[in-house]
Amino acid sequence: MTHDRTPEACDLLIEAGWVVPVVPHGVVLEDHAVAVRDGEIVAVLPTREARARFDAAETVSRPDAALIPGLVNAHTHNPMTLLRGIADDLPLMEWLQGHIWPVEGAVMGPEFIEDGITLAIAEMLRGGTTCANENYFFPDVQAAVYKQHGFRARVGLPVIDFPTAWAKTSEEYFERAGEVHDQWRDDPLVATTFAPHAPYTVSDENFERIRMLSDQLDIPVHLHTHETAHEVSESHAKLGQRPIARLDRLGLINDRLIAVHMTQLTDAEIALCAQRGVSVVHCPESNLKLASGFCPVGKLVKAGVNVAIGTDGCASNNDLDMFGETRTAALLAKAVAEDASAFDAATALHAATLGGARALGFEAKIGSIEPGKQADVVCVDLGQIETQPLHHVVSQLIYATGRHHVSDVWIAGRAKLRERMLVDMDAAALVANARQWRERIAAIRLT
Amino acid sequence: MTHDRTPEACDLLIEAGWVVPVVPHGVVLEDHAVAVRDGEIVAVLPTREARARFDAAETVSRPDAALIPGLVNAHTHNPMTLLRGIADDLPLMEWLQGHIWPVEGAVMGPEFIEDGITLAIAEMLRGGTTCANENYFFPDVQAAVYKQHGFRARVGLPVIDFPTAWAKTSEEYFERAGEVHDQWRDDPLVATTFAPHAPYTVSDENFERIRMLSDQLDIPVHLHTHETAHEVSESHAKLGQRPIARLDRLGLINDRLIAVHMTQLTDAEIALCAQRGVSVVHCPESNLKLASGFCPVGKLVKAGVNVAIGTDGCASNNDLDMFGETRTAALLAKAVAEDASAFDAATALHAATLGGARALGFEAKIGSIEPGKQADVVCVDLGQIETQPLHHVVSQLIYATGRHHVSDVWIAGRAKLRERMLVDMDAAALVANARQWRERIAAIRLT
Repeated sequence: MTHDRTPEACDLLIEAGWVVPVVPHGVVLEDHAVAVRDGEIVAVLPTREARARFDAAETVSRPDAALIPGLVNAHTHNPMTLLRGIADDLPLMEWLQGHIWPVEGAVMGPEFIEDGITLAIAEMLRGGTTCANENYFFPDVQAAVYKQHGFRARVGLPVIDFPTAWAKTSEEYFERAGEVHDQWRDDPLVATTFAPHAPYTVSDENFERIRMLSDQLDIPVHLHTHETAHEVSESHAKLGQRPIARLDRLGLINDRLIAVHMTQLTDAEIALCAQRGVSVVHCPESNLKLASGFCPVGKLVKAGVNVAIGTDGCASNNDLDMFGETRTAALLAKAVAEDASAFDAATALHAATLGGARALGFEAKIGSIEPGKQADVVCVDLGQIETQPLHHVVSQLIYATGRHHVSDVWIAGRAKLRERMLVDMDAAALVANARQWRERIAAIRLT
Repeated sequence: MTHDRTPEACDLLIEAGWVVPVVPHGVVLEDHAVAVRDGEIVAVLPTREARARFDAAETVSRPDAALIPGLVNAHTHNPMTLLRGIADDLPLMEWLQGHIWPVEGAVMGPEFIEDGITLAIAEMLRGGTTCANENYFFPDVQAAVYKQHGFRARVGLPVIDFPTAWAKTSEEYFERAGEVHDQWRDDPLVATTFAPHAPYTVSDENFERIRMLSDQLDIPVHLHTHETAHEVSESHAKLGQRPIARLDRLGLINDRLIAVHMTQLTDAEIALCAQRGVSVVHCPESNLKLASGFCPVGKLVKAGVNVAIGTDGCASNNDLDMFGETRTAALLAKAVAEDASAFDAATALHAATLGGARALGFEAKIGSIEPGKQADVVCVDLGQIETQPLHHVVSQLIYATGRHHVSDVWIAGRAKLRERMLVDMDAAALVANARQWRERIAAIRLT
């Protein structure tokens, strides 16, 4: 260590009891610091060395905390946060047709999108999530709201074969998609995906057009598929093919595909996904709550498929808690695989961070704590009663930590949560606004 | 309402935005209050009426909170809290033989029991749990620690067919059991159960003795059984009977039996348990993490079996979070039953409260908010971002609330947590003590 050279300037030095960089896999760096300049990680090094090497404009010291990459929620419908708990414990079709769709029909529009996503951003920040893969209507509004709050996201450009408040015809869906994509194509924080709703609501023709455009525009395709046994058997009955076979015929089984749910998979389908570089987003709590089935996560990981984690929307979960979701994923995978060593803690943390980043095509930017990546990082307090004694940092993060142990959050080096306080959002105003939505939605449901 | 009569004195009036009494099932009472005198609930009534009727020594007003019965953790090994996360993601036998047993062998004794349970009590209180069904060695020490902290518990009197630090021979196990039972037989807070370890570690003779003594002493029998397919097939191979058939032959399938885990059940076994009044303790997260299997909770409830919830010990979970455990139970039951309406929110809350109370034989004392019951009650803040908007109180409690939303806890009318601060425990000292256990256990594992 040389002490005589001039210290380097940096904007922020975060000193943590432990840094869990995710790359290399499973590593825990004790008493390390992360230096940030212009929103980017410039060094990860022992705290003692960091103090000598850097002259930081701001130093945040968290000796009882682990610093981890921000969590990536790889599948969510955040406007639906305003519908949290309006209908539970119902069979899927009764839930959709009797509750969700009628309410959505009455509230759908820019105000609902804006207020729902704003509430969701606050909840995600308080729980250590720094990036969302959004899937809903009005991506123009979504993008603007994420940008306004400095939150990283991909917003889905919806395509569905029936008219909605967003677009009336296929032509209009693609036209609006192109407009939104053009507006955000060079943004450092917010990007787009194509978001065809599901195999059973999108025609071959539209899937082919999406494949062509996703190649041209270099954006992922974010798709619910193989969510239920019913979806798969219906596809077989109507089209003579399981959805994955049909998507393969249409050229969509490739490394741009973000395949969400995937509870129904043959070994051959798993091998195909591995070979083609498909990313699978596992949403265990939604799959359990809607009784959709069990995603074979252990097999997917073994086959080399990239696995990410998503909460799904608050109408079917009912939270945006990536700590909880990842814990459920880690626990459930073992019982499904009948193997207590399946999907271990380090692998689960990888899925919730770098796995998500890779699914979204953001792996060069985020998902791990490495020099050159954006400083999307999260401090997790491991000094409280619930995480004592601390025998194993990564185990504690996955199996014992709750989202309420998140103390600080940065996105691209900008502080978004400090000692559990939202930096630039007014929590009381958000709660007041949610309350007026409660009244409005109750009034709709009574009529 | 008459305002001219003299107000009744009471010790405590808790005014809540919502009271969820659990009895009647699924009911939510808006703007209600609970009056407490001598540790007992004396009235549940609208807040306006309560203010007129009672002259309370103390009033606690929580307009944004739901007041619920304290949660009952119906199966736990709380001393093992000190082993949280020492070994995860391992096959059962490697986990037990290579990690848990060697460490337990080195630390087992009164100090380990006392410190582990004390840490566990702090964690349980911070998460809204007010009663534990304890299962470990040294029940004499356990009982004294629970009593000292004013925490409600049943402590298990262990019986196992090999020598341990607690007792060397069957004779000694029963002798010590009798002594501990005698000491605590009339205590209002702490009682005992018989805790034969499991069917594969207890002889017919000892089971028969336990049956006889449990009848005489009027205490439950707390037993791990049908935890894994291996346990059941091994019993069949060695003894020609599945464990439940054998226990039935020995007279133990009755309404004193607290049967823990029960992942392997035929329809006939479920019907037998329903008919005989057996209580089943469902520990979903332990069953998932150890890849033990799936308890058919939906079928059990449909058959009329009393279902309770337990976290199991922190070496296999790794927390004592009854909110999380109950949420996992509610989600998992639907996928296992292939029915999204199985084990709904109100039924899950019942299992975590009155179901646990009934399993422990405490249903006359606790488990619901009703006049005449002990004031073991918990305030849950529903005014934070994670539980907004509030469309449905019980849904929110099960699917969106975390244990960190618990604000206040009382046991027998005595405040144990106030606005998230432990009333009579020193959190910093507990963390410091856990840290020295970390060092001690690390030293054992290195040798």
